[in-house]
Amino acid sequence: MNTVISTEAEIRQAIDDWTAAFRAKDINRLMSHYSADVIAYDLKPPFQVKGATAWRSIWEECMPCFPSSFDVETRDLTVIANDDVAIAHWLFRFTGMEPGHPAMQSYMRATVGYRKEQGRWRIVHEHASVPINPETSLAVYTLEP
Amino acid sequence: MNTVISTEAEIRQAIDDWTAAFRAKDINRLMSHYSADVIAYDLKPPFQVKGATAWRSIWEECMPCFPSSFDVETRDLTVIANDDVAIAHWLFRFTGMEPGHPAMQSYMRATVGYRKEQGRWRIVHEHASVPINPETSLAVYTLEP
Repeated sequence: MNTVISTEAEIRQAIDDWTAAFRAKDINRLMSHYSADVIAYDLKPPFQVKGATAWRSIWEECMPCFPSSFDVETRDLTVIANDDVAIAHWLFRFTGMEPGHPAMQSYMRATVGYRKEQGRWRIVHEHASVPINPETSLAVYTLEP
Repeated sequence: MNTVISTEAEIRQAIDDWTAAFRAKDINRLMSHYSADVIAYDLKPPFQVKGATAWRSIWEECMPCFPSSFDVETRDLTVIANDDVAIAHWLFRFTGMEPGHPAMQSYMRATVGYRKEQGRWRIVHEHASVPINPETSLAVYTLEP
């Protein structure tokens, strides 16, 4: 297996593990994926979050809002990687919640930047969003992106 | 100058040139920064744009909406780079338009992924957004991010 393919496989595995940690609501396992100096642009405010300690607080606040059982469906994953820097982007949505749950009403867009730190891929940047209509300032949701 | 520093300088220069092209409304110069297979998640719909041809059409449609004179202010630029893959993210807002112009009312968040193709940095991914309030689905604007 050449280096590019094996690096891509490592990133895909890191994303799978991150997703499994999210589903399990395991904040320690989730946070083990982040660099200490991660900067996150989340779907909801704050506008930017600087550092793993602040990012962990956001997760601790937001995790109880998720139901005890749910799944995350991803599609259109693209990975651009070399030995120690990688970018991954994909679309995702929540599934398996009670019918009509607002978190299942749209795909969202995710971009994640990775850097290899002491032999392990860590997230140094995360950006999640939906587009907005600039005339109404309303989020534009879709299940058919 | 070591490789990391010089690569960072190259990326900063690429961002400066992209911004100058945008200010000059020079679509050819702007598009020269993109890889043929760029995938963009823009501030406004469509949800995702695949490929430089489709992305160029978006620019051709949206460029006339900008006034003849404006500037782009950036802050908090971070670059993570090695020899041929780089991630840059920053906040930006428009300035120099007529007072009260809606495009000047908030910072926006930008993430850009670069890959070196035939010796030149090309944008393979772009993600721009503002956060939304999940309860109201309204964009959350700020001039103090």
